[in-house]
Amino acid sequence: MSEQQAPDIGPVFDALKPDVRDEPESGIIRVANYAWQAEDAIKLWVGEGDLPTPDFICNAAAEAMARGETFYTWQRGIPTLREALGRYHNRLFGVPNDPENYFITGGGMQAIHLALQAIAGAGDQLVIPSPAWPNYAAPMRMLQIEPVEVPMAFESGVWQLDLDRLFDAVTDRTRAICLNSPSNPLGKVTSADELIAVRDFCRKRGIWLLGDEVYSRFYYPGDGDNRTIAPSLLECCEPEERLILANTFSKNWAMTGWRIGWLQAPQSIGQVVENLIQYNTSGVASFMQSAAAVALDEGEPFMAQQLERAQTGLQIVLDTLGARGDVQYQRPEGAFYFFFRVEGMDSSDANTRRMIDEAGVGLAPGTAFGPGGEDGWYRLCFARSHDSLRTAMDRLCTWLDKR
Amino acid sequence: MSEQQAPDIGPVFDALKPDVRDEPESGIIRVANYAWQAEDAIKLWVGEGDLPTPDFICNAAAEAMARGETFYTWQRGIPTLREALGRYHNRLFGVPNDPENYFITGGGMQAIHLALQAIAGAGDQLVIPSPAWPNYAAPMRMLQIEPVEVPMAFESGVWQLDLDRLFDAVTDRTRAICLNSPSNPLGKVTSADELIAVRDFCRKRGIWLLGDEVYSRFYYPGDGDNRTIAPSLLECCEPEERLILANTFSKNWAMTGWRIGWLQAPQSIGQVVENLIQYNTSGVASFMQSAAAVALDEGEPFMAQQLERAQTGLQIVLDTLGARGDVQYQRPEGAFYFFFRVEGMDSSDANTRRMIDEAGVGLAPGTAFGPGGEDGWYRLCFARSHDSLRTAMDRLCTWLDKR
Repeated sequence: MSEQQAPDIGPVFDALKPDVRDEPESGIIRVANYAWQAEDAIKLWVGEGDLPTPDFICNAAAEAMARGETFYTWQRGIPTLREALGRYHNRLFGVPNDPENYFITGGGMQAIHLALQAIAGAGDQLVIPSPAWPNYAAPMRMLQIEPVEVPMAFESGVWQLDLDRLFDAVTDRTRAICLNSPSNPLGKVTSADELIAVRDFCRKRGIWLLGDEVYSRFYYPGDGDNRTIAPSLLECCEPEERLILANTFSKNWAMTGWRIGWLQAPQSIGQVVENLIQYNTSGVASFMQSAAAVALDEGEPFMAQQLERAQTGLQIVLDTLGARGDVQYQRPEGAFYFFFRVEGMDSSDANTRRMIDEAGVGLAPGTAFGPGGEDGWYRLCFARSHDSLRTAMDRLCTWLDKR
Repeated sequence: MSEQQAPDIGPVFDALKPDVRDEPESGIIRVANYAWQAEDAIKLWVGEGDLPTPDFICNAAAEAMARGETFYTWQRGIPTLREALGRYHNRLFGVPNDPENYFITGGGMQAIHLALQAIAGAGDQLVIPSPAWPNYAAPMRMLQIEPVEVPMAFESGVWQLDLDRLFDAVTDRTRAICLNSPSNPLGKVTSADELIAVRDFCRKRGIWLLGDEVYSRFYYPGDGDNRTIAPSLLECCEPEERLILANTFSKNWAMTGWRIGWLQAPQSIGQVVENLIQYNTSGVASFMQSAAAVALDEGEPFMAQQLERAQTGLQIVLDTLGARGDVQYQRPEGAFYFFFRVEGMDSSDANTRRMIDEAGVGLAPGTAFGPGGEDGWYRLCFARSHDSLRTAMDRLCTWLDKR
């Protein structure tokens, strides 16, 4: 009797859509996976603080669940939360207090992904200064959109955003410019004048402006600057213009794991955003949204604590790693990342692994952030407990000394 | 002094991507929005039961939050939940108990959306029998994928899935056949023989099979059928084949509002699925996943109650609306929808609104489900409390009598 023949099924992996199949793993996730077994390594590669979500927010979610908020809900988000967002933005930026400009999403990442789907498709281009968070270019490529990354130059200790170069990258196929300020990974803040220049250029060319001001409340003003929040596109744009802002509850209120964020967009495209939400994920858990509204309304003391913690964290890094003669960087103006280069440590991928194994400190390699981040750059998150940050800096500096 | 001139901003809505801009609102959502003010209307248009999530699941989520499960987590899903899914499928379908075939998603909808992104792009086609849940064709169009809907015929009281016609719709541009069984809205179950025929055709043509067996546990076997669950592609496919199944916690465990589901896929495409999750939403809340694992491990008594409730609900509908001479339908073999046509009531959109206003009962219009669902078809969800279902049937039959 002959053995049963295996069915002729043919290729599986190769049958995937090429743009999706060929997209490599995120460079940040690659480190995370490498470091998974290194339990003693201090984890500074990730873009989150080390505080769990505060109890007053968790309790609000548990109470909402107990109330039975477990059914399908408004695709745009529950009115309570959209109203709270209206108040919040009115308070911070003086924009009209109108819930109709806000759409609840499954985190800042989904806010970006929905915005991409709304404005661009196969063969379109989006222009984005680089180094940048890799979660812009990668989803674009997977959606067959071409990211046009415009490398910034690190000159005289400063990351230069050359607007002429940025604008020159815009072609007939460009659908938007992406602007992230304060920037991940650079901590660089785009000035109000620069925001206006980009706005005017986008108006003239009829393209979209995709803004990401997720870190705007983590702002470290220089001398003579009285602002308490980074300059925002909201301060210079009209409610009805080709502006979409992606935002998240993750950073301000220590809710990274929740996956809840929002889009701020012109009301005229509301039905389209609602459709996109419906057909991507069909909304966000109502009980989470109730808790997010509590975070907005009652979370200012916690936010103040988060900011103070990050400011001190930054100072610890500046006083140790930043004080070394072999380390180059621009002092972060916002966000909670320290992006630095070490003389003679060019291969950031290999060195990141060595640091985990030999120094017990995990950083994100600059290569993960696209053009401009190669040549030995590293990103370090300083929104961590001061003790653990001090230990990490000790370990890192000792390891650098021994090289 | 001249008035300040408004800036020349140009179009906003018209600047959206055309495929996304021009997609109409879902026909089901349109009813929901129409009925929003009709507080007394019994809401049978929606695809969810009326029981809130049971306490043992909500409590598990609250406890996980209190344990600090509020940070970023595994993009594919937490090991606990993927292991629970392995056990669950092993128990139900005899497939290998392997967590590596499962990927946690933001609901069944996202499972479908991720599968679409993985296998098809601009200009590709997917073939799908119709009437079907509108949340297949709409997201395809928004992703510039062309849905090729193959209308089924209602003949002699039965919805006929003509496999030759289905296969004839496959062209060189076809990337997959979508198969939903038990089907929403028809309640039709694809037989094991039909599943094998579709599998063999997909193997021969080298295309994907996108399966949706979300309702497989809501199965109402005919006389002489000893199965307790609908026939599944898992029973006839290999672990490594071009098969992706979308599934959800929504229906079995009354968790529609949570937005948590899963993809079942070959292990060889695991990294690609993980990348898609990372760049779409970056995962699902860890505390929700812990609760979902509890639902799988401890939820069988609740599932049994859900099934019994739906069986009685179906009988109530069959004994009332189904017993009328002017009503045509195929008796549902699964899921929890009754899809029916009333003689002389062709315009289902207009009549759906009339039923809300005049009878106080809200149904979904057949037009929402694509070709084959026009001409006066209606979908009714019977996973509701028996009292409210009896009242709804009384109202509807009285209203039909008066026509």
